[in-house]
Amino acid sequence: MERKGILLVVSGFSGAGKGTLMKSLVESYDNYALSISMTTRKPREGEENGKAYFFVEESVFLEKIKEEKVIEYAQYCGNYYGTPKEYVEEMLHQGKDVILEIEIQGALKVKEKYPDALLLFVMPPSAEELKRRLVGRGTETEEVISQRLLRASEEAEGIEAYDYILINDKLEDCVKELHNLVMAAHNTPDRNQEFINHIRKELKGLLKGE
Amino acid sequence: MERKGILLVVSGFSGAGKGTLMKSLVESYDNYALSISMTTRKPREGEENGKAYFFVEESVFLEKIKEEKVIEYAQYCGNYYGTPKEYVEEMLHQGKDVILEIEIQGALKVKEKYPDALLLFVMPPSAEELKRRLVGRGTETEEVISQRLLRASEEAEGIEAYDYILINDKLEDCVKELHNLVMAAHNTPDRNQEFINHIRKELKGLLKGE
Repeated sequence: MERKGILLVVSGFSGAGKGTLMKSLVESYDNYALSISMTTRKPREGEENGKAYFFVEESVFLEKIKEEKVIEYAQYCGNYYGTPKEYVEEMLHQGKDVILEIEIQGALKVKEKYPDALLLFVMPPSAEELKRRLVGRGTETEEVISQRLLRASEEAEGIEAYDYILINDKLEDCVKELHNLVMAAHNTPDRNQEFINHIRKELKGLLKGE
Repeated sequence: MERKGILLVVSGFSGAGKGTLMKSLVESYDNYALSISMTTRKPREGEENGKAYFFVEESVFLEKIKEEKVIEYAQYCGNYYGTPKEYVEEMLHQGKDVILEIEIQGALKVKEKYPDALLLFVMPPSAEELKRRLVGRGTETEEVISQRLLRASEEAEGIEAYDYILINDKLEDCVKELHNLVMAAHNTPDRNQEFINHIRKELKGLLKGE
């Protein structure tokens, strides 16, 4: 029976440790693929095309939106950022669980187009701990930290739209827990319709003495 | 934060190995409690009250139904069998994940009363394997085996009503998988509303400089 991948949408507060978590997940298990975003911003020095981003001209990006080849997109500082459909669907088709790391508005758009997508929200064990992590980076001004906390407070209002929350306390435990959530999702009847239909047919065959 | 238990309803084909699976689950992890059924049938020799069953008089059973102290019940061979509410709710309140092993009609009744219940359907890896297990018991006549297969074929029509399917191939793997499904269910936002509200309040407090 063919294994179809799950589209995994990961959001969470800045400072909740999403980046490290995704990196560790992909390194720890071989069933994941990270989606690569497409952007119209110019590559910075050392940035390779197709690694962190696919870099394209604005005309190409707009054409792809028109052709419905972009799952979701947003504009930020005059540039477009989006998720190209083709790569995601190719990976899903190969049976990979594909990870999209995006914020809530994008997550909801993805859920509309892919009702089967699994939405995860990564949280710190407490707001105090979130602040500690943001301060601990040592790179953010007090103003930026306040902005991040404000943003977190706004994002927290949307948590109920997600299928699961994930509390990132110890990274190693959290990676395992995240993996378990995805494995659990593979056990729903709608993701195993082929197997269920097969066993139904097989049972009927046995009853007929086939 | 208080941990509220999950009501876990387990169904599955006769011969799928539910009994062994539940026994191993309860022995392997300490967060589970098996629900104890109530029945009006007379105890067999060696059967203790409150172990496999609570044995009661019919008048008591009927009174409990009237008082809505029975989650679900059925009649079988002139006797009543049912799930007493009090024990289940006490265990859930203590934070235990409570296991009910019942067939589909009962499972659907439980889901009506406890929309938050988690419904699992245990399946063999194939119908052929199911037949092999039934034959392998060596205690069933060919007629009984046919009846079981017919019943399985009927039950198979209801699988989509369950939250998860669980394929019981190797017992040890299956126990772990079952445990993971329950652990995953503890991560839904509605089961963590208290934590989510707490962190929202905490974030607002930090923003006010509290």
